[in-house]
Amino acid sequence: MNNTDIKQYMQSVGRQARAAARLIAKAETAVKNQALIAMAEAINRDQQKLLAANAQDLQAARDKGLDAALIDRLTLSAEGVTNMAEGLRQIAALADPVGEISGLNYRPSGIQVGKMRVPLGVVGIIYEARPNVTADAAGLCLKAGNAAILRGGSEAIHSNQAIAICVREGLESAGLPETAVQVIETTDRAAVGELITMQAFVDVIVPRGGKGLIERVSAEARIPVIKHLHGVCHVYIDDQADLDKAVRIADNAKTQRYGTCNTMETLLIHEAIAKEVLPPLCQIYLEKGVTLRGDATACQIMPQMSSATEDDWFTEYLAPILSIRIVNGLEQAMDHIAHYGSQHTDSIVTENYSRARRFLREVDSSSVMVNTTTRFADGFEYGLGAEIGISTDKIHARGPVGLEGLTSQKYIVLGNGQIRS
Amino acid sequence: MNNTDIKQYMQSVGRQARAAARLIAKAETAVKNQALIAMAEAINRDQQKLLAANAQDLQAARDKGLDAALIDRLTLSAEGVTNMAEGLRQIAALADPVGEISGLNYRPSGIQVGKMRVPLGVVGIIYEARPNVTADAAGLCLKAGNAAILRGGSEAIHSNQAIAICVREGLESAGLPETAVQVIETTDRAAVGELITMQAFVDVIVPRGGKGLIERVSAEARIPVIKHLHGVCHVYIDDQADLDKAVRIADNAKTQRYGTCNTMETLLIHEAIAKEVLPPLCQIYLEKGVTLRGDATACQIMPQMSSATEDDWFTEYLAPILSIRIVNGLEQAMDHIAHYGSQHTDSIVTENYSRARRFLREVDSSSVMVNTTTRFADGFEYGLGAEIGISTDKIHARGPVGLEGLTSQKYIVLGNGQIRS
Repeated sequence: MNNTDIKQYMQSVGRQARAAARLIAKAETAVKNQALIAMAEAINRDQQKLLAANAQDLQAARDKGLDAALIDRLTLSAEGVTNMAEGLRQIAALADPVGEISGLNYRPSGIQVGKMRVPLGVVGIIYEARPNVTADAAGLCLKAGNAAILRGGSEAIHSNQAIAICVREGLESAGLPETAVQVIETTDRAAVGELITMQAFVDVIVPRGGKGLIERVSAEARIPVIKHLHGVCHVYIDDQADLDKAVRIADNAKTQRYGTCNTMETLLIHEAIAKEVLPPLCQIYLEKGVTLRGDATACQIMPQMSSATEDDWFTEYLAPILSIRIVNGLEQAMDHIAHYGSQHTDSIVTENYSRARRFLREVDSSSVMVNTTTRFADGFEYGLGAEIGISTDKIHARGPVGLEGLTSQKYIVLGNGQIRS
Repeated sequence: MNNTDIKQYMQSVGRQARAAARLIAKAETAVKNQALIAMAEAINRDQQKLLAANAQDLQAARDKGLDAALIDRLTLSAEGVTNMAEGLRQIAALADPVGEISGLNYRPSGIQVGKMRVPLGVVGIIYEARPNVTADAAGLCLKAGNAAILRGGSEAIHSNQAIAICVREGLESAGLPETAVQVIETTDRAAVGELITMQAFVDVIVPRGGKGLIERVSAEARIPVIKHLHGVCHVYIDDQADLDKAVRIADNAKTQRYGTCNTMETLLIHEAIAKEVLPPLCQIYLEKGVTLRGDATACQIMPQMSSATEDDWFTEYLAPILSIRIVNGLEQAMDHIAHYGSQHTDSIVTENYSRARRFLREVDSSSVMVNTTTRFADGFEYGLGAEIGISTDKIHARGPVGLEGLTSQKYIVLGNGQIRS
């Protein structure tokens, strides 16, 4: 397709999504659930077809010499297919957020004023290699009453189109418009440019992927973006910490998984307990193959560390590397987090009530924790059921975004003939 | 100032606002209230100075030949000054939204997960002639824990600077940084261009003013905007309406005030009761000098009407003009609202339970009402205490935006040493 064709194609996708959104917004809960379960059944039934389509994508990726990490994300196993179907069944089991009424109270004028939770309308999701996002995003958007336009990575085009067939089948079998979930059929990058500027047809954009994608989308979008930037997460071990908990939490926050955004990247330790807590912690890290980079004081205590540079404090390693800084107290720890952090997830380990209270109030991150691991910052762990991403924005949604983050609230007013005087 | 100077000036304002925001975010409720009351006292005390500054602005506006409506909005009376001070005292009396914790529940992992309401950070407010916005916006932003950068219309520069002195005095007397509320000192339009693109220093922009201002800000901003577009508000009189209520509501929605965004601009009437309800209603309108523009059926019933054009259905008159359309039922009424409306405020008049229920669910506007007047769509009437504007966006805040709309929510997680496995 040339650019004019792409523009026409995307405008047509947008127009159909806008029309479908009105129908999905008022769809009954049981009908949406029926569609979700039918999608899951189609995915289970088509397992061989999905794996074959995925094999086609994998072959092309290998032929192009794409890197192992990308091929890993692109790969759909038989278990992966089962999990995708199971994910849709779980979304069907979640409570319907649409239409929930809250805070309906009488006002002195006699009217009752409250809020009703409503869909956003049309959600555009731009993602990279993982094919399972196609099913997850379709399911979450549908349950939240939105129409979805999904634009996956070009590497996954065959996998995504195969999943799209199952999604459409599910919608159709429940009597919902197939255009409620549209998976973009072109791999041309110009389609993204159209998607993020069609203000008339798209209400919000959710980019899921690496920094490059998110920065491009944020810079060019003319539509609100729920964005997820990087996670430079901290654990601060206070001098009034329970040291057993501190070691367990600092170990888990770094080593339970290296490549996730809620993994700790910098450990802050109070100077008064640094000599006590660093040796056992560092032994664990070094045994697990974590490279340690410390400030001058930390390096003095543990000469196995190399010196951290100014850049290290800003870095999301997503790897077995950890920066360690010794601070003189809560104030300096919070200053460090405010200056170098990315407002994603930060945790304090302390038994001191007032310091925990201050940390919770003053640290301006999407998740702020006491005495637990940053790795818990996750939609499933928080009880959202599923997440479409983690927002590091402040507007609309912060932290893991589930069904509620894909909705808005309107005011409803119930009267009995009241007028304003 | 030339453009380089303006850029430097705005960057310095932004940097100071960002620094102040951290202090205001953690300021205690009593301290914020003390500042608000001190601002109110300074405004009462300086009444003569404020009126003199306003007289200077009014003289300049008259010299420039600005129109009467603008001069009306620009004018500050002694009563206006008293109301400004009273508004600040009312904000002091509102509950502090910052730090409110909700939904804190135990998860199977043993952690407790909830949300804490937090400030947005730095709020940029761009407004036009009304000087009272300076005090209102300063008060609301401060109470919500935000730093504010206020950019009023050039016509009101002397009034705004005089109010700014009172605001700074209030902040200082409570021991808060003066830079928590900064009123831009230059009238150069380039300052707006800087303000709406300083992503590092400003978290959200609230434009308050005419369509031109809001469209410019929306098009050029690189920061999230809480915007208020026009209000093409509808009342639909169903054939199962109580006709006394219908007449009272349709009268009030149009004629109680003509120039407000929540005024009805189009009246939709069910064909089955049109002949009964139109004559008494039209008599009221015509007595009050309202020009009526109807569709063919309406014109047949009331020949005093002129014919409405396609454009009329899209128009926010803000004037004693009303379009009237006869529809064949709820479905057509909702289709009309979806097509021609502006998603601001729409009301149904009916005694039919199922139709009221459908209207509430299906009409996608920031306020949806049953059996009452659109004129109630207002922060004070809704019990928000005060409003910074009415959002017609779907993201973050819809409808009247008060203290809550100037905040966000972060997740808080309380543990006791739990780790993720």
